[in-house]
Amino acid sequence: MDAMDIAVAVDCMGGDHGPGVTVPAALRFLQDHPEASVILVGSESAILAELKSGKIPPRVRILPASEVVEMHDPPAAALKNKKDSSMRVAINLVKDGEAQACVSAGNTGALMAISRFVLKMVPGIERPAIITILPTLKGRTYMLDMGANVDCSAEHLLQFAIMGSVLVSSVEKIEKPSVGLLNVGEEEIKGNEVVKRAAELLKGSGLNFIGNVEGDDIFKGTADIVVCDGFVGNVALKTSEGLAHMLATFLREEYGKNLLTRLAGLVSLPVINAFKHRVDPRRYNGASLLGLKGIVIKSHGSADVYSFQFALQRALDEARSGMLNELGKRMQASGQA
Amino acid sequence: MDAMDIAVAVDCMGGDHGPGVTVPAALRFLQDHPEASVILVGSESAILAELKSGKIPPRVRILPASEVVEMHDPPAAALKNKKDSSMRVAINLVKDGEAQACVSAGNTGALMAISRFVLKMVPGIERPAIITILPTLKGRTYMLDMGANVDCSAEHLLQFAIMGSVLVSSVEKIEKPSVGLLNVGEEEIKGNEVVKRAAELLKGSGLNFIGNVEGDDIFKGTADIVVCDGFVGNVALKTSEGLAHMLATFLREEYGKNLLTRLAGLVSLPVINAFKHRVDPRRYNGASLLGLKGIVIKSHGSADVYSFQFALQRALDEARSGMLNELGKRMQASGQA
Repeated sequence: MDAMDIAVAVDCMGGDHGPGVTVPAALRFLQDHPEASVILVGSESAILAELKSGKIPPRVRILPASEVVEMHDPPAAALKNKKDSSMRVAINLVKDGEAQACVSAGNTGALMAISRFVLKMVPGIERPAIITILPTLKGRTYMLDMGANVDCSAEHLLQFAIMGSVLVSSVEKIEKPSVGLLNVGEEEIKGNEVVKRAAELLKGSGLNFIGNVEGDDIFKGTADIVVCDGFVGNVALKTSEGLAHMLATFLREEYGKNLLTRLAGLVSLPVINAFKHRVDPRRYNGASLLGLKGIVIKSHGSADVYSFQFALQRALDEARSGMLNELGKRMQASGQA
Repeated sequence: MDAMDIAVAVDCMGGDHGPGVTVPAALRFLQDHPEASVILVGSESAILAELKSGKIPPRVRILPASEVVEMHDPPAAALKNKKDSSMRVAINLVKDGEAQACVSAGNTGALMAISRFVLKMVPGIERPAIITILPTLKGRTYMLDMGANVDCSAEHLLQFAIMGSVLVSSVEKIEKPSVGLLNVGEEEIKGNEVVKRAAELLKGSGLNFIGNVEGDDIFKGTADIVVCDGFVGNVALKTSEGLAHMLATFLREEYGKNLLTRLAGLVSLPVINAFKHRVDPRRYNGASLLGLKGIVIKSHGSADVYSFQFALQRALDEARSGMLNELGKRMQASGQA
């Protein structure tokens, strides 16, 4: 697909901040990408209020939606009762081919349920998985599943590995991205039963399977793709967030202790800022819901304008990459579709 | 038990460094604790060589053992074939009541297998679990299981919670330590099947169960004790190690970039050192193998002298606390013994 044709549907009402973040982020995204367009979905008046000039800029279309999926809405209820929600209307645009991807910072469970209902699964994939990008010593690693599936079979883990490989080879242009299976030891005898069986399946999959990797391999960047079930992935990600927060707090406390340490902090400010930029989680915002017949990107609910732009960027990158076609072909070739 | 009576058996041959670390650490430990004694187990000549004076100091006894469990020895083989290993002789001392605890930096699987065979389980506990201490925003949190059990039932998780509670109330003198169940969300409907059932069991357990906690709660210090299966615990711990390593590397790189940043680093040195001390993993060295009829502490294999002392300290703290008696009583009271 030519990049000129790519429209991104934006659920403007989702997330903690709604149009106050999503609309300015979309406008900045358009500045960076003259080849893209956006469809802003949600309350027309709220969206217009964020277009400071009052005029609708080029490459922007507003599509009204009368309802909003709230963060506390049970997914099933959001699916059944909010058919004119900004989230659902944005997903519908992907289904109808009017947008090539959609982005939402809203309720993850509802986004998953509605996407699955509206877009359907790629044949051969039983469950959608959430894939995210993490910074590593070597660059970046893709990790899935990050919480969509808490009870997984070995077959599911294999499907996650296939989806991850197709995504990374398409988007990052790595021909045979390496796949590591998250385990408690590198030896083949280690791990729980599901993981041991998954290793067997992966060995026969034709993927570039490099074997078991351990928790510390994630941030070492040992593999391009780390595969795990959603329970483990979610715990690993949130534990990392908690640790990063604790370390940042302690460092701030130590620099704030007295006049001398505050002075040292001032002198170190350029270093600290460069460091913060390097590991800024906002630059990794935008998790992809893989396995659907359409591209759906989940932004962190608390994303700010800077952060939400990266989720939009991911949508564009994936739409551009032709990943969906590749996944369909890969599943057909494997005889699983 | 009076602290005067406490002897700690030390597997001097275990770990990456053997007697070069374990013996000096034991001597420093004795300096800090005039009430304790140690039994140094292993190659007599190697141990004597580390007692620089050539004389055996007070409160030190050397017990020769002719074999060494290597890091790569399969646990079953170590159990069957190395009956005079320093590890096994140290554990035997605990069984015979000559030592009130033992410490090893050796092969974890072998330590587990031999301890279980020699010491046996506390009645009512089906599997030993590894519990470790982590620094948090509020102080410290105990977490188990850290890798002994990769396939757990809800009943196992309940037993882990009981063991953790007894340990923390005995050692930390917290009457009703809070127990959190590691999950992917705080809501009761979340989680995999085992965790959901474990939550039900915990609610009826009489423990101070505060419900589900998430990965980021570990380092927040939300609960005194975090319970999870060994697969998840191992991944969470190793992921944390990997992240800490990556952040430290990036920070060092940023401070090393040019003359100005190196100067800023120099000015910040006292701050950085205070920060490093606060989160120094060596100060948290020493994981306890819980559920055995004896106290067994596993030190990190790569521990240095400073670090190994903390593992010895943990052995002393646990032996002093009367934790084993408490656990026996608790299991009998629950009718599970």
